[in-house]
Parts: sequence; structure tokens; C-alpha cells
Amino acid sequence: MEKKEQLYEGKAKKVFATDDPDLLIVQYKDDATAFNGLKKGTIAGKGIINNQMSNRLMLLLEKQAIPTHFVRELNERETLVKKVRIVPLEVIVRNIAAGSFSKHYGVEEGVVFDKPTIEFSYKNDALGDPLLNFHHALALKVATYRELRTIERYAMRINGILQEFWAACGVTLVDFKMEFGRIADGSIVLADEISPDTCRLWDSNTHEKLDKDRFRRDLGGIEEAYAEIMRRLEEHL
Amino acid sequence: MEKKEQLYEGKAKKVFATDDPDLLIVQYKDDATAFNGLKKGTIAGKGIINNQMSNRLMLLLEKQAIPTHFVRELNERETLVKKVRIVPLEVIVRNIAAGSFSKHYGVEEGVVFDKPTIEFSYKNDALGDPLLNFHHALALKVATYRELRTIERYAMRINGILQEFWAACGVTLVDFKMEFGRIADGSIVLADEISPDTCRLWDSNTHEKLDKDRFRRDLGGIEEAYAEIMRRLEEHL
Repeated sequence: MEKKEQLYEGKAKKVFATDDPDLLIVQYKDDATAFNGLKKGTIAGKGIINNQMSNRLMLLLEKQAIPTHFVRELNERETLVKKVRIVPLEVIVRNIAAGSFSKHYGVEEGVVFDKPTIEFSYKNDALGDPLLNFHHALALKVATYRELRTIERYAMRINGILQEFWAACGVTLVDFKMEFGRIADGSIVLADEISPDTCRLWDSNTHEKLDKDRFRRDLGGIEEAYAEIMRRLEEHL
Repeated sequence: MEKKEQLYEGKAKKVFATDDPDLLIVQYKDDATAFNGLKKGTIAGKGIINNQMSNRLMLLLEKQAIPTHFVRELNERETLVKKVRIVPLEVIVRNIAAGSFSKHYGVEEGVVFDKPTIEFSYKNDALGDPLLNFHHALALKVATYRELRTIERYAMRINGILQEFWAACGVTLVDFKMEFGRIADGSIVLADEISPDTCRLWDSNTHEKLDKDRFRRDLGGIEEAYAEIMRRLEEHL
């Protein structure tokens, strides 16, 4: 597999072409941003942890029949993935009120929902990634009805699998963000990453935050939290 | 029916108790507000038009098996209605992109959707009536699953009935806002009002706005637009 030109540089990752038109290389950076890019920083070693954690979790999901873009890990920061046409939605599943949910709806952080909630945001930096519902997503033609139903079904199953896995690690999965894409045959797969950048993960006993909220909220101990969550994951895989 | 103490004064209406605990009197004012109360004004005669228009449209809906809070018109500004426990949702059906949809999702006003969209906002002035989806509404316990499904079904049928009615008047129903409540037996009925305050109504040929957007956007001819839409309704009922 030959690494070719850089196609894209995002907030936390670079993407490179390969000599296979259906495959890309993703390279994880240590850069961290929050609040739609308004806050910027670096979390030393984050790229390595996120790359390895995301790959291990995607493998876990693949074993339970969730298709993902993962192909194979190339080195500590780089992974070979299937090329996708991204569905321009951030798909968020929440088990416990936190973050924007608490802020928008006036619900105290930590309130546990009877059932998980799922929501879509329209991936559009200029518009501020606005929340939208199923009907809006159809009206904006971001995906077909069938694709949206598939995404909802996968998202809820992924939540169940990850909740159970993290619980065994003494970690509560509060909420997390996913992105999905279409591979060459048009089918939907989980793309992007699953990491402390995209998940809220709390120590199940102490409720200590082991995720990017330590960066967003200037809580300190950021590198230690990423290392701790990786340590627990490795212990249980 | 005896009118008793005032229970509530809203932006456009006052509500009075009656000697029957299950019935209330609604009195329509000429006051107009927009942008969550930031813009204030008066539209002469609006209260009379909205009262009479809303009552005629609710009667039309009742004839097509949509339950409403309407009981009977008492005088030009006052109507007897069933007392409801309101479901704290603004239910919006849209046939054409306009207003907050156009702003939030970057879609030009006037784009016609393939299918109507429906959305819920959480009625909470302090939070700015935030958009929420079906799952959020359940998590916030604003209504039961069954109630939400009933509201969605009624809202879509109401849209079909009103679209057809207004089309016969040479008027395009762009979008409109509804509120629903529970009457004494717990069943869901359409509440609040249906008027140029709560609907976007465009002349089908000229696309001239015949609704509260004339007030929101300082377009002038506000009283004339309300009178024109009432004239067309009376011609077709």
C-alpha cells in the first residue's frame, strides 16, 4: 500500500490517498479543538491513543456485524480505511444528560434517560452544525429514508455494544458522536473515529471525566485521562 | 356561561375562568410580538380576525374528525374553549422552506419540499423554545410516546386539510405552528389558534405575504393583509 498525496487536513486528522482508489490512509494528530474551532490546543500523545482505541473498538463492532471503514492499522498514528462518501450528519447517542443537551433543554448534567436518545446535527461549520430531525434530513436530501433508518439502527446497536464494553472497564458511556459514510457499493458503514475526542466517558464510581471535556472545560490532567482510558481498554480486550 | 377571573395573559390572548371548571374563555388582543418578545407592536383589528378565523378553521377540522378545544364563539373577540393541560411543544409543519428553517439550514426561502416536514420546539421562553426531536421529547417527558404519535398524525392531517382549503382561496400554506393539549378525559386536542399569527400564508400567484411576516419584517400593509386573508376565507366558507 503506497501512501500518496494529502487529500484533506481536518481538526484532528489528515487524510492521504493511496494507490488503491477505494482506500485511504488516516493520520491522527495531537491537535485538539473545541467549540467549533474557537478553542485550540495540543494533547500530547492523543493521536496515538485515538488511532489505536478507535481501531480496537471498530474491530469489536465488526465482530458484532456492524460494518465500519476500518481495514488495518499501519503504525501508531496511521490506519488504512475504506474510502467513503460521508453522510453530512453528526449522529449523537446519549444515555445521560450532558453537554449541549443539558444546556439547550435546561436539564442537569448526570440525569439518566429511561432510554437512549439519538439526534442528528447537519455537518456544516458555516451554519454551526445545527440540530435537525429525520424529516429535515430528508428535506435537505442529506440521505435517503432507507439510509437514515440504517444509520439509526446501527447507532443504537453500537451504543449497546459500547455501553456494555465500557461498563466492564468501569467506565460509563454518557454520550458519543458518530459519522457514517457510503462505501463503493453504496452501503452504509461507520466512519470517522471512536475515541475520548468523540465520546463522553466517566469513571463509573467517581464520575471523573476521562474524555475531551477535560480540555473543553480546562479541568487539567488531560493526557493522564486519555492514558487511563486507554489502559482500561487494553486491560479488557 | 359566566366569565370569571383572568387566569393568564399571554402575548396575544387573555384567558378567563368560567363557572364550568372544564371550560375557559379566550380573549384575542391586537398586540403583536415577534422574536421571542423582542419586537412589540399593535395590529388594529387583529384580535377580531384571529378569533373568527381560528374558530372557522377549527370547525372545518372538527368536521374532518380532528378534535379541537373549540366550543363556541361568544363575541367578536371571545371564544369558549375546553380547558386543556397543554403539551409544552410548538408543533410546526412546513411545506416550503422559510423563516427559521431557511436560516438554520441555509436553504433559500421558497424551496418546496417533496414531502411536508414536521418539527417540535420545546415551549420554554427562558431556553428560547429550542428545537427537539421525538427522542428528546420523550427524554424530557413532555408527552408519552402515544401522545407524540397522535400529535404527529393529527398535525400531518391538519396540514393536508388546511393546504387544500387555502389553495381554494388562492393562498399557499407555507408553514404553520400548532399547540396541542389534553382535555379532562386525557385525550389530545388541537388548542391555541390557527391564524395569520401562526401560519405563513402566501398569495398563490404573487407570493405576497399575507401573514405576520409583514410585521416581523416591517413590510407594511399589515392590517390590509390580515383583512385580505379573512375576506378570502369568508368567500370560501
